[in-house]
Parts: sequence; C-alpha cells; structure tokens
Amino acid sequence: MIRIGIVGGTGYTGVELLRLLVQHPHAELVAITSRKEAGMPVAEMFPSLRGRVDIAFSDPANAALERCDVVFFATPHGVAMAQAPALLAAGVRVIDLAADFRLKDPAEFERWYRMPHGCPELLGQAVYGLPEVNREAIRSARLIGLPGCYPTSVQLGLLPVLEPAAGDLVDPDSIIADCKSGVSGAGRKAEVNTLLAEAADNFKAYGVTGHRHWPETRQGLSAIAGRPVNLVFTPHLVPMIRGIHSTLYVRLRPAARAADFQALYERRYADEPFVDVMPAGSTPETRSVRASNQLRIAVHRPPTPDGAPSDLLMVLVVEDNLVKGASGQAVQVMNLMFGLPETAGLAQVAILP
Amino acid sequence: MIRIGIVGGTGYTGVELLRLLVQHPHAELVAITSRKEAGMPVAEMFPSLRGRVDIAFSDPANAALERCDVVFFATPHGVAMAQAPALLAAGVRVIDLAADFRLKDPAEFERWYRMPHGCPELLGQAVYGLPEVNREAIRSARLIGLPGCYPTSVQLGLLPVLEPAAGDLVDPDSIIADCKSGVSGAGRKAEVNTLLAEAADNFKAYGVTGHRHWPETRQGLSAIAGRPVNLVFTPHLVPMIRGIHSTLYVRLRPAARAADFQALYERRYADEPFVDVMPAGSTPETRSVRASNQLRIAVHRPPTPDGAPSDLLMVLVVEDNLVKGASGQAVQVMNLMFGLPETAGLAQVAILP
Amino acid sequence: MIRIGIVGGTGYTGVELLRLLVQHPHAELVAITSRKEAGMPVAEMFPSLRGRVDIAFSDPANAALERCDVVFFATPHGVAMAQAPALLAAGVRVIDLAADFRLKDPAEFERWYRMPHGCPELLGQAVYGLPEVNREAIRSARLIGLPGCYPTSVQLGLLPVLEPAAGDLVDPDSIIADCKSGVSGAGRKAEVNTLLAEAADNFKAYGVTGHRHWPETRQGLSAIAGRPVNLVFTPHLVPMIRGIHSTLYVRLRPAARAADFQALYERRYADEPFVDVMPAGSTPETRSVRASNQLRIAVHRPPTPDGAPSDLLMVLVVEDNLVKGASGQAVQVMNLMFGLPETAGLAQVAILP
Amino acid sequence: MIRIGIVGGTGYTGVELLRLLVQHPHAELVAITSRKEAGMPVAEMFPSLRGRVDIAFSDPANAALERCDVVFFATPHGVAMAQAPALLAAGVRVIDLAADFRLKDPAEFERWYRMPHGCPELLGQAVYGLPEVNREAIRSARLIGLPGCYPTSVQLGLLPVLEPAAGDLVDPDSIIADCKSGVSGAGRKAEVNTLLAEAADNFKAYGVTGHRHWPETRQGLSAIAGRPVNLVFTPHLVPMIRGIHSTLYVRLRPAARAADFQALYERRYADEPFVDVMPAGSTPETRSVRASNQLRIAVHRPPTPDGAPSDLLMVLVVEDNLVKGASGQAVQVMNLMFGLPETAGLAQVAILP
Repeated sequence: MIRIGIVGGTGYTGVELLRLLVQHPHAELVAITSRKEAGMPVAEMFPSLRGRVDIAFSDPANAALERCDVVFFATPHGVAMAQAPALLAAGVRVIDLAADFRLKDPAEFERWYRMPHGCPELLGQAVYGLPEVNREAIRSARLIGLPGCYPTSVQLGLLPVLEPAAGDLVDPDSIIADCKSGVSGAGRKAEVNTLLAEAADNFKAYGVTGHRHWPETRQGLSAIAGRPVNLVFTPHLVPMIRGIHSTLYVRLRPAARAADFQALYERRYADEPFVDVMPAGSTPETRSVRASNQLRIAVHRPPTPDGAPSDLLMVLVVEDNLVKGASGQAVQVMNLMFGLPETAGLAQVAILP
Repeated sequence: MIRIGIVGGTGYTGVELLRLLVQHPHAELVAITSRKEAGMPVAEMFPSLRGRVDIAFSDPANAALERCDVVFFATPHGVAMAQAPALLAAGVRVIDLAADFRLKDPAEFERWYRMPHGCPELLGQAVYGLPEVNREAIRSARLIGLPGCYPTSVQLGLLPVLEPAAGDLVDPDSIIADCKSGVSGAGRKAEVNTLLAEAADNFKAYGVTGHRHWPETRQGLSAIAGRPVNLVFTPHLVPMIRGIHSTLYVRLRPAARAADFQALYERRYADEPFVDVMPAGSTPETRSVRASNQLRIAVHRPPTPDGAPSDLLMVLVVEDNLVKGASGQAVQVMNLMFGLPETAGLAQVAILP
Repeated sequence: MIRIGIVGGTGYTGVELLRLLVQHPHAELVAITSRKEAGMPVAEMFPSLRGRVDIAFSDPANAALERCDVVFFATPHGVAMAQAPALLAAGVRVIDLAADFRLKDPAEFERWYRMPHGCPELLGQAVYGLPEVNREAIRSARLIGLPGCYPTSVQLGLLPVLEPAAGDLVDPDSIIADCKSGVSGAGRKAEVNTLLAEAADNFKAYGVTGHRHWPETRQGLSAIAGRPVNLVFTPHLVPMIRGIHSTLYVRLRPAARAADFQALYERRYADEPFVDVMPAGSTPETRSVRASNQLRIAVHRPPTPDGAPSDLLMVLVVEDNLVKGASGQAVQVMNLMFGLPETAGLAQVAILP
Repeated sequence: MIRIGIVGGTGYTGVELLRLLVQHPHAELVAITSRKEAGMPVAEMFPSLRGRVDIAFSDPANAALERCDVVFFATPHGVAMAQAPALLAAGVRVIDLAADFRLKDPAEFERWYRMPHGCPELLGQAVYGLPEVNREAIRSARLIGLPGCYPTSVQLGLLPVLEPAAGDLVDPDSIIADCKSGVSGAGRKAEVNTLLAEAADNFKAYGVTGHRHWPETRQGLSAIAGRPVNLVFTPHLVPMIRGIHSTLYVRLRPAARAADFQALYERRYADEPFVDVMPAGSTPETRSVRASNQLRIAVHRPPTPDGAPSDLLMVLVVEDNLVKGASGQAVQVMNLMFGLPETAGLAQVAILP
C-alpha cells in the first residue's frame, strides 16, 4: 500500500482526492492536514465520507508527512513551494495540485501569482503532470506540477494537430479557446461571486484580460508544438457544479483541408485509457464525464454556406474539472509514479443523470 | 458470474442499473431490451457508458431472457406483470423496479394504477424488496416488488419507532410525511412539467390529493407496525436532479417523551450497511448520498418556546432516489438473492460537491 | 414625490428595493448609503440598474438622511436601532427590513439576536408591518418593523383560521410549518454554505433547533389569535434563487371538520390586492410569484384512505421572499404610510418562465 | 388603445408577450387563440397572470382576429404564413415571432425549415424586425418577420464594425460566434433533451452542423455589411432558464488595430434605448438583462503574451432571449409601427438576483 498524505484537504480537490483514494486498491491514507480545522474528523466536514474516512484533520506541524510515500498538496498557491523541499529531501514524492510547479519560468510565476517563487531551483526537476504528454517523465518524477483544469482540456484537445509528428496542419497563432466551467472550479471559498443566488440562472465571461491558466496553456501548447504558440483564451462561468467544456477553434493550413482529422484524433488517442474520441458528428456533454476521469473529444469542421467544410477545425472537449482536471489526474499520475496500473482506482463510471 | 437481463433500460433507473452493474464484481450483463430502441448501442444513448457497455438494445422478442439468472424490469408499470410469469416458469428470478408487485391487494393496484393486474396469483409470492425489513424473505424470493423511492425513505425513517419491539412510542395515526424529490423521480419522459425551463428556480407541491406512493407507504408502515397505520403524504418537486429529503413528523405517546430516540435509532441500524444514523443535531443533505446507496437519518425533537423538547418526533431522511430509492436497492436485493455479500458493487462514495 | 433614503443598499433586499422604487410613480431616491462602498456608483455594483439609478453609494456620515421623508434600512440586524432614534426625532419615518423592531420583547430580541437592544423604548411605537393584519396601524406609523420572509408566509397562511372571528376551528398548538426557501434568503454574504457548488443540486433542512423567524412567527400568530400559539417550524434550503413555499399543517377541531375552508379563505382575502386564494385543488408554485408582490395560497384537506377528508387542514403558501417577503412589502407599507394607493409601483407581473 | 390578437399563446414567447402587454399603457388584448387549449382561461395555464388576464384561449376558427389592429404569431414555424395573407388583406398588421418571414429567399426557407413557403409573394414586403437596423422600414411595415434570439445578439454585436460607414475595419469572413443560450430558447415543448434531469448541471454544444439561425444571421450580417458575410456559429445549451451570451470573435484589418472600438460602439449606440455599451473591461452577465428588453455589449481586444492587444476584436453580448430576443422586441416593433414611444411598456428593470 502506498502511504499517502494530503496537505489542505478542506477544498474541492481535497474531498475529491479523498473520494478517489478511499476506493483505490493500493492507497492508504495516513494523514490529512488543515491548520484551521485541526482536530475535526474529516467525515464531519464531508458527511459523504462517513464510514469511509475515519481520521481527523491534523495540524501541519504534527503530521509526520515525511513518513508518507507521497504527499498531495490540495492547497492554495504558495503552500507547496514552502514545504516541498523538506519533503523531497526526506524522500517523499510530491504532487502539487496548485500552480507552484506548473510554470517553468519563475518570473512568469511571479507575474501571474503575485508572489515570489519559494524554490525556483526545483522548477527544473518538476514534471508537468499531463500523462498523455509526459508519461515517461512522470514515471520517474519526484515532484509534479499538476496541470490546471482548463489547460488540461485545451492541451488534450489540440495535442494531435500541434505535435510535430502531425506535420504542419494548423496555424498555431490562430487558436481561440472559448472555455466554459462549472462553479466548483472557483474552489470552496467564501465569495460573493459564486453564491448560488449570484451564479445560478446566469452566464458570463470572466478573466478575459488575463487568466492564470492562459500562460500555463501557452507554455504547454508550445512545448507540444516545439515552437511558440499563442492563443486567445476566454473562460466563462456556467451555472453548474462540475464540468468544463472547451470549444476550440484553429485555422487549417491550406494543404491540410483535405486531412482526415477524425482518423488522426482516433489514432493518436487509441491507447489512452482516459481520452475518448467520440464518433464524427458528436457533441459531447459535460455530464457524460461527471465524477469520472474520462475526457471526451469531438472533432468538427464547421460548414460553409454551400455545405463544404470551412478552413477551420473545431474541437469540443469535455472533462470533469475536479477529476481529469485535478484530483483524478493526480491519482493517474500517482499510479504512474509508483508503477501501478494507470487506471487503478479510476474506473468509476460517470454519473448520468 | 450472475447472468443479468434488463427489460426497458432506456430510463433513469435503467441507466443507473447499468452504471452499478458494470462495476459489480459478480454481474454479467447478457441482454437489455427496448422495443423502441432495438439495435441502438447502449453507449450511443448514454455516452457515460462508452467503453463500459458494449451491447446494443435488443428487441424483447429476441432477447432470450429466459437464459438469464435474473431479470430486472426498469419499465413503466404494467410490463413486468405481463412477462414475469413466463420468466419465473423458466426458473429466472425477477426484480421489478416498477409498481406491479408492490401492492398486495390487486384491487388497490387497480385503483391507483388504473389497469387490471395481469397476474394477481403471483402477488402472494412476491416479496417487497426492502432489505432492512424483509431481508430473510428476500434471500429466498424468486419475485421481488422493489419499493418506490419515497416509500423507502419514509419506511426506513419510521421503522425504529413503529415496529412492535419498540413498544407503544408514537401515535401511528399522526404521521405527516412532507417529502421533497429531485426531478429524476419523474423519469426520462418527454413532459412539459419537468422541463428545465419549467422546474428550475421553482418549487411546488404536487400529487397532494393522492400519490401512488401513498397506499404503498401505508401498506409498508402497517406491515411494520402490525396494525393499520395512516399518514398524510405531501410530495414536493425540488429543482435538482437526484435526491429525496423526507421530513417526517409523528406525535409521541405521553409515556415516550423521555425516551432516547437517538439511541434507539442507532441501535436499530447498527448493523445495517446502508443506513447511517447521523449524530444528534445533524441536518443531512441530499448530496451527502448523491450517487451512493447510503440513506442517512437524523432524529430530532423540535423545541417548545421554553426550550424543552416538544411532544413531536421529527425524522429527517435523505437518499438518492435512483440508488437506494431504486437501482441500488435492486442490486442490494440481487446480492441477497444470490448469496453474495450484501454490499457487493455498492461501495461507491457519494459525489460531493 | 416622496423623498427616499436607503441605508445599506448593497444586499439583495437593497437592490430589490431599488428595482421597485425606480419604477414607482411617487418615489424619488435621494440617498443610498454604504460605508464600505461609498463612492461607487450603484449601477456599477448592480448593472441591472444601469441607466436607471444614477447616484452613487454615499458615506453614512454625509448622507443627510434627515432630509428624507422615509428611510429604509436594508442592513444587517442592529443598524436600524442605532440610527432610528435620531431620524425619528428629525421627523423622518423609518422602515426597518431587518429584525430590530419585529419582536416586542427586548429580552426575546436579545436572546435570539445576541445583542442588547439599542432603543427598547421605541418598541412600543414600532408597528409590525404586515398590511393584511395591521393596515390601520401602519397608516399612522412612524416606525415599522417589517416582517421576516418566512413569518409573512406562515401568518398569511393561517390568519383566516386563527383570528377570533373565525371561531374555534383549529388546535393552535398543533401547527407544523414545513417551510422551504430559495438561497437569496441567506443574503448577499460571502459564505461557503450558500455557494452554488454547495447548495445546487442539493436539499436540506437547517436551523431546526431554533431559527430566528420562529419567535417572530409565534408572536405574530399569537397576536392574530389573541392567545398564545405555538408551532413547529422547519426551514429548508431549496436550490433556487427566489421563492418561499410554506407547507402548513394544523389539526381541526372536531366541530370544524365540515367547515368550508376554501370559502373562508376566499372571503377573508377577497379585498386584499396581494393575496390570491387559488381554486380548490391547486398546488401553487413559487415561480407564479417570482419578482412580484403577490402571495398565493391553496387550501387542502388531505384525504384519508377511504377518500374522506382527514382532520387536518393543509395550507400551501408561495411568495417571493425578496418582494412580498421583504422589499415589496416595504413599498406596500410605505404606500400606506403616505396615503398612496396601496398597489402603487407594485403591479409587476411575475416572471414565468 | 391598440387592439391586439395573439395566435398560439401557450408557449414561452406567448406568455412573455402577455406579461409585457398587460403592463403596456396602449395595448388591449382582444383575443388569444390555441386550437388545443380553446376554452381554457389563460390564467389557468399561467397562474402568474391570475388577476391580470381574464380571457380564455379561443378557437382559431372563432377568434375574429381580423378586427384586431395587430396580430402576433407566437406559433411554431409555418402557422403565420398560412394565416397572414387573409389578415393583411383585412388591414391587420402582422408580427411573426417565428421564422416564416425572416429569410428573404424562399428556397433558403425551404432548405432549413423543410416545408414549402406558403406565401413567397409576401416575402418582399416583409420587414426584418430589428429596430436598430431597420427602424424606418418598420414604422411603415404591415408584415414583420421578427429576428431570432441568437441572430439579434450577433447582429447587434457586430453592427458597428460591419456597416459600411465604419470603413474596412474587420475581415468579414473571419467571424466566429460562440453562443450560449438558456433552455427556454427550446420552447415549451415536451422533449427529453431539455428536461431538468437532462439539461441541469450539464453543458454542451448542439446544432453545430447547421442551426436554423445560421442562415438568418448570415443574411442579416450581409445586409448590414452590404456584401456577403460568412460566420462560424456554434450554439451551446446553458443550464439556466433565460438568457443568451454571445462571444463574438473577428479579425481586424491591419490598418484597424489602432482604432478605438469602445468609442465606436458607444457612438453607434448612443441613442438606442435598448442597447447598452458597457464600460471598457466589462464582462456582462445574462442576469443583468433578465426579464428586461435591454441588450448589453462589452468590447474587448484580447491580449497577446506581451500585453499588447491582439489583432482580434472580441465582443460580448447579453440579452434575454425571450425579451429582446423575442417578445420584447415584438413590442418594440409594435410601438414603432403604431407611432408610440419606442420604449412604451418596456421599462421593466432586470431581475437581479
């Protein structure tokens, strides 16, 4: 059994990690910390876990996390970078669900997160935890910066056409990512904006002048393409709890207009257990992945007035932002790091309706 | 492996059965029928099952259901009673999720369901599939009438104070069941009343002059109490997908006012894997059981103005209407019928948030 | 034109007051204060008011509220009682939408609101602002304690059977008020409990061991009945923005079982512009009053198994908690205080769907 | 008073028309027809109208619509074109909220609506009822094809940059309209897809291979631009009742990158009573126009990585699909046709929260 510690388990990615780990055949939850809730039984805060999680939140000072095999940080940005060095030194592997180890450039981190980076010397060894892109590096990693929810959907939506193996199919500077997320993406934080009475029966864009997932997505797409990639990224807030739907548009190179993108995507993801390329013509819905680690993709060529395909590729991507967009991906990464089957503990079927 | 057939799997209890059965260690789905959708792959109708269910709906005429060990009817009322006799004669066990085998009195069935009963001769051998009440009878049953969603919550909420072993604690004619259900309880049927644009951001009572679950609940409570029990039953429609919350009120006998109801409930349900008596003072929420087979109960004594407890017992019960209120209970019953661990395939943790 | 001031207009009752007052033919908004938001244009906080409200929030210190004809307090509890004495002394009428002037007994106020009352000497002249009960007193009042949202629905739901003129129809100690409210009732406050990701697709009771609207409702019902009345009050949270649905149960006196309650209610409310007694057999829905000042009532006699009416009266009441339950009622009261038509500015039709 | 008839008032645009017209100072509702509901009082179907609409649905055969000044068709496609010729011949003006008179080319109509056009000879005199584009033509029109909900938002969002007066600012073949609508847009029809249990807590695109509003929008934009305009149009379904949010992207001509688009939009719409250009940097939300005839626009230039504006213009548009997207626009058009103030009966403030 892998001995597991969780730092900061009182948010949505924390409780989702707990849900997945208590059903995982090889995981043993050793400690979960919360400075504010120390002493409170986990199942008292989250009654969904009654009878399944028997431990209480412990004070970070006493948590003996260094005796764990792996520690997940389900914390606000800035916490993992303060504690990771000591844990790594003690031989513990670290998976950060926040942003501390996502951006490779500490200046970029400081610009977007408005705090100095606490351990820039570790950025080099941190692996970006997107298995479909970095599987081999993840297997041997000791420190993971887990992708954000939006960036996961955009990168997996465009990977097949951007990676060099695909050839020069698209104009990488023409990408528009019109993304829509459920409210749980904002976290379990007392805020007026995400109250039900504010966010229900309502729809809006936000963060259009610069969302933190934008530089991360640019970095990821550029790494995939092997050249700088830009994109317009417009996040929107959907009055639902879970789910991300990314509608991606990219211009095709003239020579690529006859390419079979459906076949390209199916081939690229044929062996990926958590990426499902849907049949041609599909429009995936977020509930088809609710509470599961699946991500589903549909590939379209919007029509022109005369019925022929336009010069645009449109990719529709759905994921559960708390599972494939966060805690499920964290477990998938853990499985890889410890040599387990990649799907261990992640076979839940989506909840529909 | 138990060979399983499902008749009529295109509704919500059908897809929920499929979700649970594909994760069940001892179940093998052999056939699923739908006259209307014959030939359509199940995963095309329910993309949440892509990669998990490979078969298509088959025509009832060709389904060879008699080769199954058990057949679930996830159909409208009236279908099971037409097909059950032949299946039973072929040695197949039958679990009806609809109402055909719930009411013991065929006249009562005909009054409420407005159709003659097709096989009243089978009503005597049909077992009411509420494991916490009828566990032993279920083990040896060949034909199950599975309880309705509301009746499950009301019966399990009142079982500890109504069964004769509890003594004469309450006035069984004073019961008020003020119940609230999510919209999936109305089924996957094209109807105006349950459109999102009608039912969202809205709340109302319905069926107050006589809901079909009322006679079933009276029958069940009377069987539990060993005497006729009446109740006022007021269902309400909640703008949510899943979940039932029953708020139950019953007058205490004067001699019972000093009784420890919290202890009574905890004791009664101590060994029940799917009934959770919450700590005193709790107010359970439906999401704490969302997509799980748990049912949670909190026991209260509403206060009088001077702070003393009133002469009323109030019981709050939450369940997922599609799981413990339908398909999960069906699997629990199947486990009992086939000598499997009662919790097999039912260990899913509730989805929160 | 009536010169109007609003203290604390950044919450839901504040913005709702603004919506109603800008459409009111005799109201002129002079000042709106907020310590925290002083200087911010009202329409910047609430874009729904762009082009309709041109003033900014002003600092309470500079607001010259004493030059208004009436000041509404749409504030947390405790603010009005600090400022009302000076305003009243300056000849300004005061309508408090919070609880400072609802309870007649300062000890009861202190017990439930956990603060000493700032001006108990004013409680005697404060009028409880429920027009259907206190219309004449309101006309001449200078200080109004406006009813809470739940208490409005419960009192108007039971007024016809509790007032002495009705005779001894019901057992006033048998009342159960099972009430359900949308989330806006919790106010526009940064809180985890009412986040969309917590409260959506969910249902629960809360405050069952003692909600602040319970003593207020007891006081109101007792004043109506002319004798002490008790009730069990169970509030529940509904995943919707606006609306209260109160399901009220009360035992009938044996002699009253043959009474025509439908006729009694229709007669009692025949001249009330904002109380609508629906036809027999109706189940009112909250959206039928969404954003309007109407309150709708349906009167039922739950059946017994043999089809006869039981000895229980069930009353279903719906209102918009922010309109008839708060800001609309405040405008209705203002109309009475200033000799305007009671319905002035309150003719909005409910928003459906 | 203008004598008004409504054909087919049992859907959402019908009940919304009724809500607006009963509050209109110059409108008198004479008849409302429904073949299916003939005889039923309108307020019985829509309790929100109790006390406000006293008439019943009448049979189309007996409705004497030719005595009206104007008849609104709030019907499925195909009804208006069957009845308009006789009404027009009788001197009655006709406003069709469906699609019969939107498309100028009967072949295009037949291609998208799969029925022959019943009166192609009238298409020439039909005026497309978008006041901000066609105000003068509307004033003298006798037959109006009212714009669809999506097309209204897209056309008003792009009008300032597409009309020839703006100069050659944008590439009219680069338009992407990523649109999101509440579920009421699908109408009050019994359908599985828009059940609350299907559409709540869910998000998806639909109609991506060709939505009927696509040719209408192309026709409208082309008319505005004075040259053929193409666009990619992707509608999505949002789990909310009302509201459309259109996120529009269009490439700028190199020479236009320094233009002040904020000023351009403010200038263009300075005199429009129902189009609100929000301050720079805004992200409008649908609830800011809920139940009102306002449409709000925000103009953005998405940034490039170095912070400079990109070569893309992004326009965010919100409207209430049932008001400015349908029934409110119908009343606005009626006001113009009858020489009334354009805003008569349309001054409702949006409902927030």
